[in-house]
Amino acid sequence: MSSYPVWGWGGPSDEPTRQQLEGLAPFVAAATGVAVQAPEAPARTPAPPPARRRLPGSLAHLGSDQPEDRVRHGIGRAYRDLVRGLRGDIRDVPDLVVRPESEQDVADVLEWATQSRTPVVPFGGGTSVVGGVEPRGLDGAISLDLGRLSGLVEVDATSRAVRLRAGTLGPAAEAALRPHGLTLRFYPQSFERSTIGGWVVTRAAGHFSTRLTHIDDLVESVRALTPVGTWESRRLPGSGAGPSPDRMLLGSEGTLGIVTEAWLRAQPRPAHRWAATLAAPDFATGSRAVRALVQSGLQPAACRLLDPVEAALSGTLATGEAALVLGLESLAPPLDAEIAQALEVGRDAGLRVLEEGARGEAGDAWRSTFVRAPFLRESLVLLGVLVETFETAVTWDRLDELVTSVTTAVTASLQRVCGGGAVGCRLTHVYPDGAAPYFTVVAPARRGSEIAQWDEVKAAASDALAAAGGTITHHHAVGRDHRPWYDGQRPDVFAQALAGAKAAVDPSGILNPGVLLG
Amino acid sequence: MSSYPVWGWGGPSDEPTRQQLEGLAPFVAAATGVAVQAPEAPARTPAPPPARRRLPGSLAHLGSDQPEDRVRHGIGRAYRDLVRGLRGDIRDVPDLVVRPESEQDVADVLEWATQSRTPVVPFGGGTSVVGGVEPRGLDGAISLDLGRLSGLVEVDATSRAVRLRAGTLGPAAEAALRPHGLTLRFYPQSFERSTIGGWVVTRAAGHFSTRLTHIDDLVESVRALTPVGTWESRRLPGSGAGPSPDRMLLGSEGTLGIVTEAWLRAQPRPAHRWAATLAAPDFATGSRAVRALVQSGLQPAACRLLDPVEAALSGTLATGEAALVLGLESLAPPLDAEIAQALEVGRDAGLRVLEEGARGEAGDAWRSTFVRAPFLRESLVLLGVLVETFETAVTWDRLDELVTSVTTAVTASLQRVCGGGAVGCRLTHVYPDGAAPYFTVVAPARRGSEIAQWDEVKAAASDALAAAGGTITHHHAVGRDHRPWYDGQRPDVFAQALAGAKAAVDPSGILNPGVLLG
Repeated sequence: MSSYPVWGWGGPSDEPTRQQLEGLAPFVAAATGVAVQAPEAPARTPAPPPARRRLPGSLAHLGSDQPEDRVRHGIGRAYRDLVRGLRGDIRDVPDLVVRPESEQDVADVLEWATQSRTPVVPFGGGTSVVGGVEPRGLDGAISLDLGRLSGLVEVDATSRAVRLRAGTLGPAAEAALRPHGLTLRFYPQSFERSTIGGWVVTRAAGHFSTRLTHIDDLVESVRALTPVGTWESRRLPGSGAGPSPDRMLLGSEGTLGIVTEAWLRAQPRPAHRWAATLAAPDFATGSRAVRALVQSGLQPAACRLLDPVEAALSGTLATGEAALVLGLESLAPPLDAEIAQALEVGRDAGLRVLEEGARGEAGDAWRSTFVRAPFLRESLVLLGVLVETFETAVTWDRLDELVTSVTTAVTASLQRVCGGGAVGCRLTHVYPDGAAPYFTVVAPARRGSEIAQWDEVKAAASDALAAAGGTITHHHAVGRDHRPWYDGQRPDVFAQALAGAKAAVDPSGILNPGVLLG
Repeated sequence: MSSYPVWGWGGPSDEPTRQQLEGLAPFVAAATGVAVQAPEAPARTPAPPPARRRLPGSLAHLGSDQPEDRVRHGIGRAYRDLVRGLRGDIRDVPDLVVRPESEQDVADVLEWATQSRTPVVPFGGGTSVVGGVEPRGLDGAISLDLGRLSGLVEVDATSRAVRLRAGTLGPAAEAALRPHGLTLRFYPQSFERSTIGGWVVTRAAGHFSTRLTHIDDLVESVRALTPVGTWESRRLPGSGAGPSPDRMLLGSEGTLGIVTEAWLRAQPRPAHRWAATLAAPDFATGSRAVRALVQSGLQPAACRLLDPVEAALSGTLATGEAALVLGLESLAPPLDAEIAQALEVGRDAGLRVLEEGARGEAGDAWRSTFVRAPFLRESLVLLGVLVETFETAVTWDRLDELVTSVTTAVTASLQRVCGGGAVGCRLTHVYPDGAAPYFTVVAPARRGSEIAQWDEVKAAASDALAAAGGTITHHHAVGRDHRPWYDGQRPDVFAQALAGAKAAVDPSGILNPGVLLG
């Protein structure tokens, strides 16, 4: 079997050549301060043990026990996944990959799984960075790949809402909407390789810094299949009739049902766009400016504050200052008044305007860089660099303390575990009452020990986040990796309520066991 | 015991005199076309049967079995409540009114209620218009009045968030925030007499037509007590860690726990305000204009479209046209560009601008009229007018059909039941993908048969709403009155999940039985 691209973000054509890696190496060393190692060649992945489960004859045509197929469904896209894939060391592999072609197929599979008590791990684009798709510690699980349940089903042009099947990838959704003059304008970093259903069940966040952040804000209704029947909410622009049925599915990570479709609100395209880069003497000054901006009523499309490490790593600013990348949009009215307000608030807070102006294609260039970042990460891994991200959200009153304590804890952990390395922080999403800090870690990896190294650093980071009052995730989901901190964060009584809800709709406990509950 | 104000919206000082009513009568007749009757004097309410339950000695000091107190807690503020109060015919009366003075008291009461299987009906301001507070058909219920758990607990000025106890009334919350330079700017029509906790558990909507509509949008975290412990979420500006614990409590109407506190996001005050009144040849043309406005990206603070009946009834426009009352706000930048856009979109859609300009106190005058409306309703009831409202929300593609079919069904029902009457419609809240129509009904009541009359009209209205794809409520909650249509609207599987959640946190089923579930 091919050893590539089991481990990587993209497809075989995205694989960097040895020559490319050797060319990149000096730049990585210079930008990160981390000594790179000789490029590593991905190892071949051995075939997994034989499958322990078989589909019944009536469903057999939906299943695959082909080794490479199974291996590819046992791995996500976290650093630990990249390393495991690179080494061919993928141990938690589903017994079967099942690809339903219709909702009836999904219902039939759930019925069989319920009767046979077979764990079902839903699989969208496989881009989980939190161990969401691997059947870790499960006995004879199937991976339910929704890739064939894809496409645009219906367009309501009047309400500007669209019905999409869960397995639709981001670019396919946009391509299907384009002839209707519509777009979702929802760009998580995984956009190219993640799905509508994945976004819904993980509460994915898009690229806007304010206003429409999580997919939650775009969801008009959701349709899911459960072992006891269909859970489909009525399409409504708003409602006050009891707790929202959709909000219980949003973030349910496959534990309450298999989302098969969603109605999403399409978004209009802006007529005016403006962008600016400002320099702040330090991150805390920058974050005070950001707080003043969002509390002044502005809803900037982009409002990314990069600390000096991130500013340098991203090539935004190499002066040792923090950088604020600001973007405003308007559907129709000119932006002049808002631009003036934004610049005034920024200057009043002690920031220096480096550049500003109407934005055309620049935004698209930025987005292109954004979605290419995971590919760059791949190259770093091949060069022996430990590279990973983690993220949170916290109220403004605790932000400075959180950033400081997490940075300190992670830096100390990197020193201990890797003998060095750097941690950078940026704000990706901002709210009137708080912000979402996003951390990037680079360090010299000790080949063969990377996962143990990262697990130790990640635990230190997560402990520090929890102690500082942050959430264990703003938009990367819980999966299997965040479970201990999620358990500590959520109200125990809510966990009991959620378990009660799950027991009612998944009486055999087959839906993604070990995630969120159980 | 006093027969007044058991039945009314306000206190004794709000009671209209006979002279006032006689003076009002001709105006009512002229405005509504409904023949008024001689003013009726409220009857005395007989004492209810003796209480069937007693608190244990340790809790006895929290309870009241005083007849008037009990009667006042057995009645909400719907038309059917007004009529029952007016006639002194209040049959579903709690056995005891229990007023906890601390969270420990709430916990103790829940423990006793669980052991003794006593139904607990939470009571905030008692303004439910859907039978939310009356212990209908319950054997020996207590009314848990949270009025003593009130006040501002904590202010986070940095994050602009405030921690308020559940029993705090709207005006008391604003008075407590004022010295901190903060406001919630959340004005449901019941503002003067409803509570923070009531808003949270019923998903109340405020006066803004767009952006921050339901209390959901202001909630940062919620604290509730359940029979199995405390359900308190972490304060977070946003999170993607599993399904939201808050969203399960929002709209739970006392069935999952007793909300004791919430952190809410305070709102900034606008620097600029603008208002306009436009005339539309008919409601459908007006609603197309409203759709164009919100889909053009504008987020008007006010965007109320009144059909010709409502326009005349409210004194906005007596030309037989529909009226659009539009308001824009800005925290800092001038509104010129948005005003130009709003007027252009309106004119393009075929509307005529009647007046427009910067708004100062006018908005406050409007809000004052808004919160006084329930008092006017009282006078109409005393004059023998059947007067009630109901509301919904629906996507734009179905809006015209819904308004037409509901208006037709209700008009026919009024003709059949009352021999005449009128129904008016307005849009109160609007979204890019739909709107919330709000209907007002006036008709000649047959004294003594009002409740049967209204029940028949309400059923016709609710059936028509459901058939047209609307929600049974956008912001009036479900209570006991909307239950049949709520059951038809929500996904059955979600109902099972909710029942599973409730069984986990309320194993004896004491929390507001008959509401949402059971």
